[in-house]
Amino acid sequence: MPKFLSTSDSDFETRFTALLGAKREDSPDVDHIVAEIIADVRARGDAAVLELTAKFDRLELTAETMRFSPDEIAAQCAKVSDADTAALQMAADRIRAYHARQMPDDAMWTDDVGAQLGWRWTPVSAAGLYVPGGIATYPSSVLMNAIPAKVAGVGRLAITVPTPDGAINPLVLMAAKIAGVDEIYRIGGAQAVAALAYGTQTIAPVDKITGPGNAFVAAAKRRVFGKVGIDMIAGPSEILVIADKDNDPDWIALDLLSQAEHDESAQSFLITDDASFGQAVAAAVEKRLETLERRAIAGASWRDFGAIVTVRDMDEAVALSDRIAPEHLELCTADADALATKVTHAGAIFIGGWTPEAIGDYIGGPNHVLPTARSARFSSGLSVMDFVKRTTLSRMTPEALAAIGPAAERLAQSESLEAHGLSVRARLDRINNLGA
Amino acid sequence: MPKFLSTSDSDFETRFTALLGAKREDSPDVDHIVAEIIADVRARGDAAVLELTAKFDRLELTAETMRFSPDEIAAQCAKVSDADTAALQMAADRIRAYHARQMPDDAMWTDDVGAQLGWRWTPVSAAGLYVPGGIATYPSSVLMNAIPAKVAGVGRLAITVPTPDGAINPLVLMAAKIAGVDEIYRIGGAQAVAALAYGTQTIAPVDKITGPGNAFVAAAKRRVFGKVGIDMIAGPSEILVIADKDNDPDWIALDLLSQAEHDESAQSFLITDDASFGQAVAAAVEKRLETLERRAIAGASWRDFGAIVTVRDMDEAVALSDRIAPEHLELCTADADALATKVTHAGAIFIGGWTPEAIGDYIGGPNHVLPTARSARFSSGLSVMDFVKRTTLSRMTPEALAAIGPAAERLAQSESLEAHGLSVRARLDRINNLGA
Repeated sequence: MPKFLSTSDSDFETRFTALLGAKREDSPDVDHIVAEIIADVRARGDAAVLELTAKFDRLELTAETMRFSPDEIAAQCAKVSDADTAALQMAADRIRAYHARQMPDDAMWTDDVGAQLGWRWTPVSAAGLYVPGGIATYPSSVLMNAIPAKVAGVGRLAITVPTPDGAINPLVLMAAKIAGVDEIYRIGGAQAVAALAYGTQTIAPVDKITGPGNAFVAAAKRRVFGKVGIDMIAGPSEILVIADKDNDPDWIALDLLSQAEHDESAQSFLITDDASFGQAVAAAVEKRLETLERRAIAGASWRDFGAIVTVRDMDEAVALSDRIAPEHLELCTADADALATKVTHAGAIFIGGWTPEAIGDYIGGPNHVLPTARSARFSSGLSVMDFVKRTTLSRMTPEALAAIGPAAERLAQSESLEAHGLSVRARLDRINNLGA
Repeated sequence: MPKFLSTSDSDFETRFTALLGAKREDSPDVDHIVAEIIADVRARGDAAVLELTAKFDRLELTAETMRFSPDEIAAQCAKVSDADTAALQMAADRIRAYHARQMPDDAMWTDDVGAQLGWRWTPVSAAGLYVPGGIATYPSSVLMNAIPAKVAGVGRLAITVPTPDGAINPLVLMAAKIAGVDEIYRIGGAQAVAALAYGTQTIAPVDKITGPGNAFVAAAKRRVFGKVGIDMIAGPSEILVIADKDNDPDWIALDLLSQAEHDESAQSFLITDDASFGQAVAAAVEKRLETLERRAIAGASWRDFGAIVTVRDMDEAVALSDRIAPEHLELCTADADALATKVTHAGAIFIGGWTPEAIGDYIGGPNHVLPTARSARFSSGLSVMDFVKRTTLSRMTPEALAAIGPAAERLAQSESLEAHGLSVRARLDRINNLGA
């Protein structure tokens, strides 16, 4: 059973704070191993990657077979059913349409002193996408990472996906093909991240690495951050459903379970203003857990981290939601639209009972790579913005420099940066001489 | 003397690659010390911060005196000259006007299946700004970090600035006052970063930490990344000037020196299509170095890392510039506007000979916190975007769910995430029952 809390209880604050602070992830300290792997790949390139792949994935590759050939990709894609291909294609089209609207605008204007100011956005030249192997190989994640990069205009997009014992999910290759990925390497772990960041004889280095992975991958991304850009370090998934009594308890139960089934460390919250509705949802969860394929995982998550909180009213629900800063927030209330505008911290909001979170995972259009572990307080889901960068632009005229240069000179002097001031002064003197 | 290179030389590629790869920064490995400091601050809060401040800054504080009082701020601000105040105020106004244009727009639309989709931007609730003490205390950096946060709508903005032996630069407090900073603490180092990230009895935790600092501060920011957001880890400053012969060599020399004087690890490049102009600039630099206040620092930077590259034409210059991906790029050529459009990787571009880089450091309007060490390949200067985050929004209707739900269900099944599929199926069944 999950934890039951009520804001009316005298120990609510203590228990709620404990829930927020629950350490859900046991991150093994793999940092020193990862540091060695990265150093090895930097020093020996392909040779190191191939050795580590033989060791960890039990797969003997060569520099030539590290990359999937066009024939291999075609052969794998041929295994995908038409229905799956059509579903991936619809998802890709919708994700592309949503992300195309995120492209930021360039700007250039002339201000009141005659200075031209502005900025210009350009895509990252090359990006690498880490795709996990094994049970957590999700073709939907390939679409969610690759399409924003391609919409941004990234010229070269490489995927690394480990294939333990040679096993590959054909849907991953189909998703990569649909998304327009340029290169696919059958490597994984910290060695793949190192190869993408530093390059090897076979793999050209990229400028940005995104995508989820295990503790080794996360540690490697943290280490190469600075040499290349990275996306967030994702933690276990979370959902908060805020629901009033006018919902089918089974729908809400399934929404809670669709996070819980991801991972034993996932966390599912229900906040409701009706305690008996909360009980009904809890009962519906138990019933579904009897038959769910992944009941061992979902049951552990729900038992260890699940919670049902009863509140006095929906304003209280929003206040608690902002403390949770949930990755996914479902609003199943009569006034869901109005409630959504009151929320400050959430990765994604699913408005109304007809919008199960699973729609957002696959097909809605918004990205499913979202900030976890309360990081929605300061970060956003993956987007086109992760694959572009801004160059600021300035152009002074003599008149503009005459108007604002003396203040720059003054500030440079106050910071004892003489050359800064002189670089302005030399030009101001010329202006004065020209004027004289 | 700097290094002289020419793209016509047979060893150009080797020497240019060496220049790009030159290790300019000796980063001491302070990570284990920083880890201990952070753990100490998390465990003991104020007591740890006060002890570490006594140890490193030789300053005995209490929980009450850790924060500058309004009276102390007023007393320090009274020491600032009217001219300095006016210059700071002009800079603040121009930085505010530039950054106000960066505020991103919310969006909401209805797509072809009737799904409502969009996103909403909200500010980070609380941000912390690290301001270095000692010689590198720059009031301009206070403006450049604090104003984007305030433009974004950050409700609470706290500064930490170490005051070794109690010394404080009054202009830092004046800049903080002008920028609307809410709290100023006289602490620094990894302990200040830990206090901002985790909070103490006196300092409430923030959600985002920005600002430059030494190796301890950089290591601490890297460690708290994830618990809070951080800006980039800044390296030594760089400038690339691309100039033709129709420039005053002394102006260009001063522009190169205005980076070199920051730091012995700073790097100044000149690329020109006229070798004798390059020689003239080199001579002008030597002449200025005879009298420059910071000639020891600037001279060392120029000698160790400075370079003058002669190219055949300006297209070659742009290609080399993109390999450098300079933090600051000055274009002093006849066709500077056209040249600017060809550049792909640069933090900031200063167009035309009347736009010395120092204008951008202080008063132009764009931010002076810019990507260093080739990170302009994948990242941007500080902006309003660093202090806002996006929540994606989705709202399905029964009709929209009927149109796209089956594809989501299909993909969920292909990923063996049964509850995901069932959460959609339960609703589709209701729609079918309603329609029947």
